[in-house]
Order: sequence, then C-alpha cells, then structure tokens
Amino acid sequence: MSRNTALSAWPLPDAAPPEPAALTPPSRSVVLVGMPGCGKSSIGRRLSVKLGLPFVDADSEIEAAAGLPITDIFTRYGEPHFRDGERRVIARLLAGPPLVLATGGGAFTDARTRRAVAESGAVAVWLRCSLPVLLRRVAGREHRPLFLNRDPREVLERLMTARHPTFAEASVIVDCTDEPPETTTRRVMEALAAHREPARMKVRLAERSYDILVGEGLVARAGARLAPVLPARRVVVVTDATVGPLHLPALRAGLDAAGIAVVATIEVPPGEASKSFSQLERVVEAALAAGADRRTTVVALGGGVVGDLAGFAAAVALRGLPFVQIPTSLLAQVDSSVGGKTGINLGLGKNLVGAFHQPLLVLADTGVLATLPPRELRAGYAEVAKHGLLQGPLWDWCEAEGARAVAGDPAALAHAVLESCRLKAGVVAADEREESAEGGRALLNLGHTFGHALEAECGYDGTLLHGEAVALGLGLAAALSARLGFCSQELPGRVISHLQELGLPARIGDLPRGFSAERLMARMRKDKKVRDGAMRFVLLRGPGEAFTTAEVPPLAVESLLRDEGAKA
Amino acid sequence: MSRNTALSAWPLPDAAPPEPAALTPPSRSVVLVGMPGCGKSSIGRRLSVKLGLPFVDADSEIEAAAGLPITDIFTRYGEPHFRDGERRVIARLLAGPPLVLATGGGAFTDARTRRAVAESGAVAVWLRCSLPVLLRRVAGREHRPLFLNRDPREVLERLMTARHPTFAEASVIVDCTDEPPETTTRRVMEALAAHREPARMKVRLAERSYDILVGEGLVARAGARLAPVLPARRVVVVTDATVGPLHLPALRAGLDAAGIAVVATIEVPPGEASKSFSQLERVVEAALAAGADRRTTVVALGGGVVGDLAGFAAAVALRGLPFVQIPTSLLAQVDSSVGGKTGINLGLGKNLVGAFHQPLLVLADTGVLATLPPRELRAGYAEVAKHGLLQGPLWDWCEAEGARAVAGDPAALAHAVLESCRLKAGVVAADEREESAEGGRALLNLGHTFGHALEAECGYDGTLLHGEAVALGLGLAAALSARLGFCSQELPGRVISHLQELGLPARIGDLPRGFSAERLMARMRKDKKVRDGAMRFVLLRGPGEAFTTAEVPPLAVESLLRDEGAKA
Repeated sequence: MSRNTALSAWPLPDAAPPEPAALTPPSRSVVLVGMPGCGKSSIGRRLSVKLGLPFVDADSEIEAAAGLPITDIFTRYGEPHFRDGERRVIARLLAGPPLVLATGGGAFTDARTRRAVAESGAVAVWLRCSLPVLLRRVAGREHRPLFLNRDPREVLERLMTARHPTFAEASVIVDCTDEPPETTTRRVMEALAAHREPARMKVRLAERSYDILVGEGLVARAGARLAPVLPARRVVVVTDATVGPLHLPALRAGLDAAGIAVVATIEVPPGEASKSFSQLERVVEAALAAGADRRTTVVALGGGVVGDLAGFAAAVALRGLPFVQIPTSLLAQVDSSVGGKTGINLGLGKNLVGAFHQPLLVLADTGVLATLPPRELRAGYAEVAKHGLLQGPLWDWCEAEGARAVAGDPAALAHAVLESCRLKAGVVAADEREESAEGGRALLNLGHTFGHALEAECGYDGTLLHGEAVALGLGLAAALSARLGFCSQELPGRVISHLQELGLPARIGDLPRGFSAERLMARMRKDKKVRDGAMRFVLLRGPGEAFTTAEVPPLAVESLLRDEGAKA
Repeated sequence: MSRNTALSAWPLPDAAPPEPAALTPPSRSVVLVGMPGCGKSSIGRRLSVKLGLPFVDADSEIEAAAGLPITDIFTRYGEPHFRDGERRVIARLLAGPPLVLATGGGAFTDARTRRAVAESGAVAVWLRCSLPVLLRRVAGREHRPLFLNRDPREVLERLMTARHPTFAEASVIVDCTDEPPETTTRRVMEALAAHREPARMKVRLAERSYDILVGEGLVARAGARLAPVLPARRVVVVTDATVGPLHLPALRAGLDAAGIAVVATIEVPPGEASKSFSQLERVVEAALAAGADRRTTVVALGGGVVGDLAGFAAAVALRGLPFVQIPTSLLAQVDSSVGGKTGINLGLGKNLVGAFHQPLLVLADTGVLATLPPRELRAGYAEVAKHGLLQGPLWDWCEAEGARAVAGDPAALAHAVLESCRLKAGVVAADEREESAEGGRALLNLGHTFGHALEAECGYDGTLLHGEAVALGLGLAAALSARLGFCSQELPGRVISHLQELGLPARIGDLPRGFSAERLMARMRKDKKVRDGAMRFVLLRGPGEAFTTAEVPPLAVESLLRDEGAKA
C-alpha cells in the first residue's frame, strides 16, 4: 500500500501494540463508532467530561482541515478522496494526547481507518442501536443529505447491513436503547473498565509472520479478530463432536457479526484416531464440495487433534488454503497451535505425515479452558512444565504456581499460556522448519522421544493422553540426563515429584499397564528425529539448559527403561 | 562453507556451466581419474599428443607448489590439509588454458574437488579397471608407500570400494583392459567425441533453486548426477508397474555405481487412479517402514502420475523429504516434472490436494522417450503445443517441426523438451506458488479449464489422456478467444488443424463419446482457479500473447460448448 506524504507523518508501527493492561481511561483514546443517530456526539461529550479527556468530532476536524463542508468534499472529490483525508485526520488526532473521538458513520467502514485506529492503541467503542431505536432518533432529521427524499427505514437498513460487520471489529460493543444518555454513558464507562485487550504476541517468520492473541472471550469476538487478516470473509470451520456443541454457537455468532460466512462446518470424531488419512480426505472433500476456494480460510476450533488435522487439510487442499487456529485445550494453546506444525499419524508412529503450514492468526481464548475435564487440563500442563524446563525461570514459576493453573485458576492459566507461547514463538522464529543441526526447534521435543514411544505403544486410544506421555517423557529425560552426568542427581526427583504432585504420571510405574523395553526401543528408532540411523535425545544440564544430542548409548536408554519398570 | 584466502582466487561460479555442445577437445580440459595403476599418466601423455594439449600431472604440480614430496605433506600436515591444497592446485590449473590433467588417485574422492572440476567445465574421464587388471599392473610396485608391507589385493579392494562411487561421478567412463595403451587412448578419444553433456537449465527459486538436465542416457548415469545434490546417499524409488520393468534396472545400476543405496522401491499401479489418498498412504508408509529418514531422498521414476504422487509423498512424509524427478514420459518431461506442483485427485476434480515441493534435480532423459507408446507421445506433445502458444516462436517451430517430434525424432524431441522446460522454468521462477493475480503461473493453465473438466467427465480411466484433454482445451480456448474478439478468427483453425494433423483431438466432436454442456460447466465452476466465485480462463490474443481473465461470460462458454457438440 502506498503512503502519501501527509500520511507518512503518522507512523504505522511494525511492532505489536502495547502489552495488555487494564484500560486506565486517560492513557488511551476512545473512538466512538456507529450508525447515524446512535449518539456518538451526545455520549461522546458526556464521556469526555467523565474521563477528563477532550472531546473531538472527526467530521468537524475534517471540515476545518479542508475548509469545506463534508457534503461539498464528497460532491467535488468523491468518496475515496474523502475517506483518505478522513483517515489521515483520524490518525493525526490519535497520534496526539488521549481524547474522546466521535467518528463519521462511514469512517470505520474503511479498512485502513480501522487499522489506523487499532495500531494507535485507541479503544474503539461501537454504540450499537436497533433499527427501531435509530428510526425514533432520526425522526425530524429528514432534511439531512443522507435521508433527503428517501425512506429513512430503507436507508438505515441498507447502511446497517453494509456497516455492522465492520463496526463489529470495535474492541468494545455497548447496546444502546431509549434510556437517557447519562445511563448509556455510565454503561460505556463500565464496559471500558471491564475491557481487557488480549495479550498479543508476534511469531516472526518474515512474510509468514502472525499474531497469537491470548485472553478471555476471544471465541465470541472471533469475527472482529479474524476480519482484518482474512483474504475474504469466508471460512470453513473444522471442529470435533466434543468441542463443537460447547463453542461452535459462540464462534458462529462472532463470525456472523463480522459478516464472515461459514461455508461449511466439518465435525470429526474426538480423539487421536481422527489424525488419519481417512479423516484428512473427508475434511478436504467436505471443504471443497462446499465451495471453498483459495481465499477461503480453514478455522480449527478444538484441541491439538483438530488443529493438526485441520491445519494439514488447509496445507494440502488446493495446495494451500489460509488457516486460523482457535485452540480450545490447554495442550493446544500452549503447544500445538503455535509453530505451524500440522499432520496426521501412521500406524508406525505419530505425526509421521504432515506439513509446516503457518496460521494467519491464533486465538487462545483462556475462557474456554473452564470447560475442560480436569484430566485434559493436567495433561496440557505437562507441556507448560516442559517449557518451564526449557526456559528456566518458568520452571520456578511452575514449581511455585503450577498447582493453581492445574486447579483452573484463570490468572495462572493465562500466565502459563502466555509464557509458553512466548517461549515457543521465539524458538520457532529462529528455526521454522526444524533444520538446525543442534538446538533450535528440536529442543521443543524434550521428553518427546520417550513420550511418543509410550503413546504409540498405548495405541492413541485415550489410555495415555499425549500430555501424560510427555510428563512421563520429562521424568525419563531428566533421569537419563542425570545418569549420563549432564545434570544434578536431584533434578529428576524435582521434575518427577512436581509432576506427580499435580496428578501426572512421571515414571513408567505410575501407569497401570506394563511396557516392553525392547518394543519401546524399536519405536524410538523409528522416531522422526532419527538422523543417519542415530537416535536423538533432548537432555538437560538444568532448568533452562537443554541440548540435543545423538551421542546417547542405546544401552543406557534401554537400561533406564528397565530400571524404571519396563519389562525386557 | 568457509573459503580461505588462497581459495577465494578461484571463482566458484553461481551460474550454470556452459550450454551443451559437442566436445571440441582443445576447447575443454580433460581430467583423468581412477585407481593407482589405471594408466592416468601413460594414457594422459598419449592423449595430450593426440589432442594437442599440454599434459600435467597434478601430483607433480602439488609437490612443486609445496616444495615437498606428497608423502611428506601427508605425514607433516595430514590428509585434510593435503586435499585442500590439491583442490586449489587443480582448480588453478583448470582455470587456465585447456590441458590434459592426471590426478592423484584420491583427488576425485574429495567432494569439493569434484565440484571444482565440474564447475570448471572440464570433462572428467574415469579409466575404470577391474581388480585383476590392476593387480597385474601394480606388480613390482610393492615398494610404493601405498602397498608397503601390505597385500596389494587387500589394499586395492579397500580403495576400490571407497573410491569407485566417487569416480562414478566422472562425465565419461572408459573400461581399461590389458590392451596396449594406444588402444585405450583411441577408445578414450572415441568416448570423448561421443560424449554430449546434457543441457542444463537452472530453475531460480532462491534457496530452492535446482537444475533440470536434458539429454540422453541420464537414467543409466543417474547416480553420477544425483550424488552431488543428495543430503545422503540413500533413496527411495517410486515408479509404476509399466515404467519399472523398462527403466528400473538401469536406474538401480546407475545409483549403485555411485554408492547410492536404494532403501525401498515402491511400485504403484500405472494410471491416473494412483493419484489417490490410498496410494499416497501406501507410498509414505512403505518409505518410512523401510527406514527412510529426513535425509533420504524420494526419486520419482515415471510419468506425471508417479511424479505428482511421489512428489506429494515426499512433501508430506516426515513433513518433507528431499525429492528428485526422473520423468519418463514426454508429458512429464515438458510439464509436470518442472515447477514443484505435486498432488493427487479427488472425485471432485484433478489435483485438488497437493503441495508445492521443489525437487533437488530433474533428469529428463530423452533416450527413454523411445519406449513410449505413440499415443502417449502425442498426448505429451499437446503440452509442447501449449508452451508454443504461450511463448510465440516455439509455436512456429511446432507448426514446422512438431510432426517430427511426434514421429519420435530424437533431435526434435530434445528441442521440444528443452524449450518447454525453459519456458516453464522462467514462468515458475517469477511466480513459484501461483500467487500472481494476473498472468504468472496461471498462464500455464492455457487449455486446462476446459481440459480438466473434460478429463473429469471421462473419469481418468484412460479414455481421454491428460494431454488429449489439453489438446481439446487448446482448441476450445482458441475458439473462445476468437469468439470474444481477442484473437484473429484464423487462430482457432490453425491450432485445431495442427493438433488434428498430429493425431490429437482438438474439438469435442473428435471424441467418440458425448458430453453434457451443463455438467462441463459445473465441473469448471469447481476448478481450483475459481476465485470469489468467478471462473478464470487463459485466453489468447495470438501465439505468445496469452492472458488470464475472470471476465468471461458463462453464457459464452456454455454456448461455445454446445456449438462444439456438447449436449444441453
């Protein structure tokens, strides 16, 4: 997009907006959007008094800057020219000290204006009115150019259809009725105080860079978040029979509000068995039969299985469709939805077939974690503990606060998700396709060489969840590191007891079934990480000090497995 | 790879070696390689007299440069240091005027030396001797450091095992017997005169750039061509039950000569039906079960079906294995093997599932085209004609010489393959992932919107080959272009009569079966090229002037189909 000289004074920051924080109103501007008659001026003036911020009407500023009434700018230069000037005026106003800004009814319909508002850090508030309310309010304004000689109902209906999907991208929505303006103003104040911007983190991968948003209520407002990044307002939603009934209605409503058409909803059976060629074929066929084209985005709503399967389907359908992850399990929020790995399983092992396919956006709605069964939440926590061991300080946090996360405490969960995504985003940005010979993405496999083998032995039937297998793998990786003299002899005990205290298996003996050391070894020799015939492990020198190695003697691994309770 | 200062004087050109040409001996250096006792010096001296080029012994030059006998360089500085100096000396010699260069027995075992020789444009000749011949020749040389106090047979056997796979990368191989050196020299002269370097073309895609080689005998010498680009000397070969028996033995021998292990050979049934999810799953499972890891390369030996299927399997197995195309049909050589498009079919249409996965190398062996059934050769020619219409002058060549290619004339076929690859490589380099809104890769779909629909209606059962469908599509695209006034009214007639003269169908009435216009329209609306609901066509203003458009009225298409003989 070209920038003209006037606009170039307004910086379009490449950096993500400021970190999440409760709105302290005077520190951020408030931008009011909505239909003509929704009260942007009357509510705006009252709001400015309450917030102690100046009130500015964008249309008056534009007229002042142009030295012409708006109708004349329209008539003389046309709408594109007007929208261009309007955007520059709004951007200039928002670049200055905080204020309350009422915008013209059409301002927010311009995608570049919406982006300028979002990037300025201001909070956009949509004053949403029903048609009857608006009709009563505009009565007597029939002389306005908008309504001149036309039926106000018809004009308003047409405008609402066109503009509501874009107003829906506002950060805050307040429904306005016939109540007195003071009451509406109070409700706007309450909504602003309650509003929390989700945390936003950028995964930096050149032209494939994308944002991860972490926060509550993202599913219900998904349309507002997706609209700015979709190539077209058209999606296929893939979910499973467990998650669909819980969250699909909210997602559909959120997409609908932003005018995003759901071309197809494809439900797969819950569980690892859906990561199969037959489900992949079903998903791709259903999406294409419903009319998905190259600009239709695949939205994965579910846990790791749905994300991996839908992501792989998106990677291969028409040789690549755009893709959005809405992970609904802790495991998916802290791990599988970030990094672009997608895929399915073979009888030979997990994730042996797949693609690197980066999403356009990841929405990690921490509110949906409340619907997770406790065992699922615990299993997901194993990946948080893994990230802790990789990162260091996060491991200290796990030992101190991990129990709160596993108990479902929203703040602890949000911290766990955020810090896990931060760690993973950094690792992935440095090694997108796992090509580093040492370290890099391979470090994220801490505990996974053992974990994948144990999980494969159990047959992906829910006996042993992936996260539980990872917990076991972490215990074994720590034990192996200590045996080979890389870390202190205390570390395995710390890792194992922390995981066990939270109800996770961390030793082979913690599981009700037995394992054959020989079969586990055979599984590990088939692991994707094997290179030139040598098994590769991620080991620890301590929390925050992981490394990859192909130098582990197979006998040491086998004897560890036996000592830990595997049969010969 | 780091370069030291001495080496940096030797340019490692990024550009491809010079265009193919018969060897006019005095214009290029000849590098002799082989085991101790194979006659590099005695043959080399005789050769230099015959060719009128100076003879140089690399070992003597190294000793002169170092001021030390070679054994002393080895003893004092070790082999890596020696090989480094040896490479620099050889590179310096080859950078000068042409000469005949005898190398030390170990020189060519160094990969960087082999690359330096290849990049200098010199012709490497391997004087290959059997063990008994060598044993007789080295009799009496037991005092040499190589054999000191050791059994010559054992020493030679060990060296042959280690070195032969690298000698096999020489451009020319001459088997040497106990015949007089004059006879061997004559045979080397003959081999040099007969030797044709394959044409080499680079597809420029940044870090995914690769070469296409076009020439005769590439399958039999595949090992020599693959070895320099494989991450490890380990491959899985995918072929079909028709091509396998014809060309697999030569390929295996060629790979074996260069020490490339064939981990698995996977044969799929011939025909379009193999581009299915079930065959994809079978190929991936077989490759991984045989032990393929991330450094094992998938080699596709076959036509478009094998290339598309094997390439897609390579793209998704372990999230991406290296890949080499050895296309054996004209269609695959001129089209599907170049550009990285891989994929399988759905009932809904062709190539609806797949990936962009660029090969490491494409070997288009024009010699294998002699084994093609005439109908296959004709069908492949349709894509040559398409490239002609896209490119312009190549269309004139088609009208003048195309019949020779279809009749199997090797020179005409080589020209058709080379020019097709050149056109396609240029288009792909500019638009790797078909993202250009206008033109770009989409132009390669000339004739394909119609062609895919006709092919889908016939059910991919061999009734209508892909190339035949493309020929029909070219006729229809030209007719549509003329109807819409984009090209002259003569062009459709020229296109149709050229294709018909070569035995290809170019009008719907040329086929024995009928088609429903309505069903064809429905197929075209499902085409991958559909964007935001609009069908996209590639049309012609004339040969060399194709363009993409979404502005074609569906009624015009439908009435063309009816007028061309499709039923309502």
